[in-house]
Amino acid sequence: MKAISVVGIGKTRYGVFKEKTFLDLSVEAAKRAMEDAGIGPEELEALYLGNYGGSDFINQNHLAPYVGSALGLGAHVPCTHIENACASGGSAVREGILAINSGSARIVLVIGVEKMNTVPTPKVTEFLAKAGDWENEVKVGYTFPCAFAMMARRHMHQYGTTRKHLAAVAVKNHKNGLNNPTAHMHKSITIDQVLEDDRIVADPLRLYDCSLITDGASAVVLSEGAIARSLSDKPVDIVGCGQAADHFALYQKDDLTKFNATVVAADKAYSMAGLRPRDIDVAEVHDCFTIAEILAIEDLGFVPKGQGGPATSDGMTSYGGKFVVNPSGGLKAKGHPVGATGVDQIAEIALQLRGDADDRQVENADFGLTHNLGGSGATCVVHILARN
Amino acid sequence: MKAISVVGIGKTRYGVFKEKTFLDLSVEAAKRAMEDAGIGPEELEALYLGNYGGSDFINQNHLAPYVGSALGLGAHVPCTHIENACASGGSAVREGILAINSGSARIVLVIGVEKMNTVPTPKVTEFLAKAGDWENEVKVGYTFPCAFAMMARRHMHQYGTTRKHLAAVAVKNHKNGLNNPTAHMHKSITIDQVLEDDRIVADPLRLYDCSLITDGASAVVLSEGAIARSLSDKPVDIVGCGQAADHFALYQKDDLTKFNATVVAADKAYSMAGLRPRDIDVAEVHDCFTIAEILAIEDLGFVPKGQGGPATSDGMTSYGGKFVVNPSGGLKAKGHPVGATGVDQIAEIALQLRGDADDRQVENADFGLTHNLGGSGATCVVHILARN
Repeated sequence: MKAISVVGIGKTRYGVFKEKTFLDLSVEAAKRAMEDAGIGPEELEALYLGNYGGSDFINQNHLAPYVGSALGLGAHVPCTHIENACASGGSAVREGILAINSGSARIVLVIGVEKMNTVPTPKVTEFLAKAGDWENEVKVGYTFPCAFAMMARRHMHQYGTTRKHLAAVAVKNHKNGLNNPTAHMHKSITIDQVLEDDRIVADPLRLYDCSLITDGASAVVLSEGAIARSLSDKPVDIVGCGQAADHFALYQKDDLTKFNATVVAADKAYSMAGLRPRDIDVAEVHDCFTIAEILAIEDLGFVPKGQGGPATSDGMTSYGGKFVVNPSGGLKAKGHPVGATGVDQIAEIALQLRGDADDRQVENADFGLTHNLGGSGATCVVHILARN
Repeated sequence: MKAISVVGIGKTRYGVFKEKTFLDLSVEAAKRAMEDAGIGPEELEALYLGNYGGSDFINQNHLAPYVGSALGLGAHVPCTHIENACASGGSAVREGILAINSGSARIVLVIGVEKMNTVPTPKVTEFLAKAGDWENEVKVGYTFPCAFAMMARRHMHQYGTTRKHLAAVAVKNHKNGLNNPTAHMHKSITIDQVLEDDRIVADPLRLYDCSLITDGASAVVLSEGAIARSLSDKPVDIVGCGQAADHFALYQKDDLTKFNATVVAADKAYSMAGLRPRDIDVAEVHDCFTIAEILAIEDLGFVPKGQGGPATSDGMTSYGGKFVVNPSGGLKAKGHPVGATGVDQIAEIALQLRGDADDRQVENADFGLTHNLGGSGATCVVHILARN
């Protein structure tokens, strides 16, 4: 792989925005990323758009030129929409990297966006469930809270993980989110609050174990490493990139406590970067539910299998710990606008490695990792970034 | 661009198949393509899936690993779903080419698939309309038959095109479809039948001016040119590839009689291939409506602007003419399973250049072109293929 750099970063505020359209959010994030890179639309050579549910949430498909047209991109700019469930954003970044590596583009805009608060919550759950196996699982009642509840139950059974361990993920990420000005939720919570909340979503997961239904967009400008310094004073390099797959349905998995796609994608990314898990200083991982962050830090090799809960409770993944996981607040507090998430993870880690993460800056961060999961784990995309 | 070759071709029969699922169709086409290339799933290094409306037609998203899992692909194979409206298939082929050019994969499977006959026709029209501008056009009654009717009317006004010219497209493509065993429709029609049919869809377009609502899948295996001869006795090279965009909505276009995305995508593809329109012997173009084929052969530079109708009526694009357009029967007779169309075009032209097109073989075909259009023309993908 050629050297690829992140040379522009743009984000909208994440939250519930009845007054902002899908296009408003997409254009706002994209313009900020272009402004950050000091370029106009005429310098872009490709657009990749990560989005999951535009067809359901806003009745709109063909989303990439929809946004490209609103941005005033020239006819010569290929605009392509990537849908890989909750990993749509990570996959869109990866396609952007491949486009540069292929020689077909030197400067690429990647936007991740989702406008979810257009329908009531049960409809959101139904639309998201289309990322699972509709015919064999969803039709009989499968939803993602239910899937991750089963994983949590099995992890508890097999490794002694407790609800208190799960709560530690939520408390940490809510705390981190307080310092992220674009986060959906700015609310400090305690372990007891998580444990005692009686709003059960899917036992053992309660309200605070779940990520948020969020509107938002994030964008990055990627360039060939060779021209990165002409576009940015502080480019950040993408030195590893891995995407992997797995059995599609939960019932096909050998092990409910492990995402094989994470293991394989991480292995590819580490190997490409020539790094090991212990080299990573900061990571944004896919905590769609608290149990998912515990599985992620295990599958990424940060801690041994089964130790994700105690490691989190002991502060290993908090500021001041061995490394920091989800300094942005994660999907839990920052919010989870599905198609935006994977792009925002890249934006967040790039900010950290530039030293531009303000109150949430992780000290001495040289290497960062992003982990974006789709569906019941049938897609995982891992990127590794390095200070230039 | 590195040399890229088509080394495997697979198709299902196109038609209305109540008994075949989306997965059945996808797997059938993919297995035939792998068999044609003499490889098993273990030799694939990436999967790109072109699909437009799985979310609406079969309630299923996250479609690439859905199919990859059913094919038994290994966890290391990244599976990515591309949605670019009716150009989803062409864009999926292009991403496959970029993946090979980037060095991330040597052998790539590209599948295009659509299962449309799951809902009544008015619902199909509504789902397809999501590829237009929902907020500003579709909500007030815009559908694709209506869009192409307006283009036809303007072309008639500006260039003197007649309903008889439009009918000549339908008659030719129905005739060609008779020789395509996988075509949806095997039915010979006459100019008078087209003109006299009283089933008006959107005036001046009547029933025979419209493509079909079709279930089907097509697949190709692409490889690095360097290893193509080890996979196929008759590899076909992709020597040009262009994707372009345009204003998203019809009301934003300067000219209703021209698709600028076609002009720009074709220009890129010709330039990459070092060829001119007159070098093309056979083309599969996006005849979603009869007027669309007339616009396509003009925008691709085969005939001067305004001359598409007379050229078709005079037989220039028929067997025995200057070159052959839509030997497969086109979207008109072969059918238009939206996400499959762009992949099937590549498969068709590759068959022609291999000399494997049986009763529809175009004599002495050295160079072929594919033209895949999305939405109201906001995406166009053009590929040029050459005999190896």
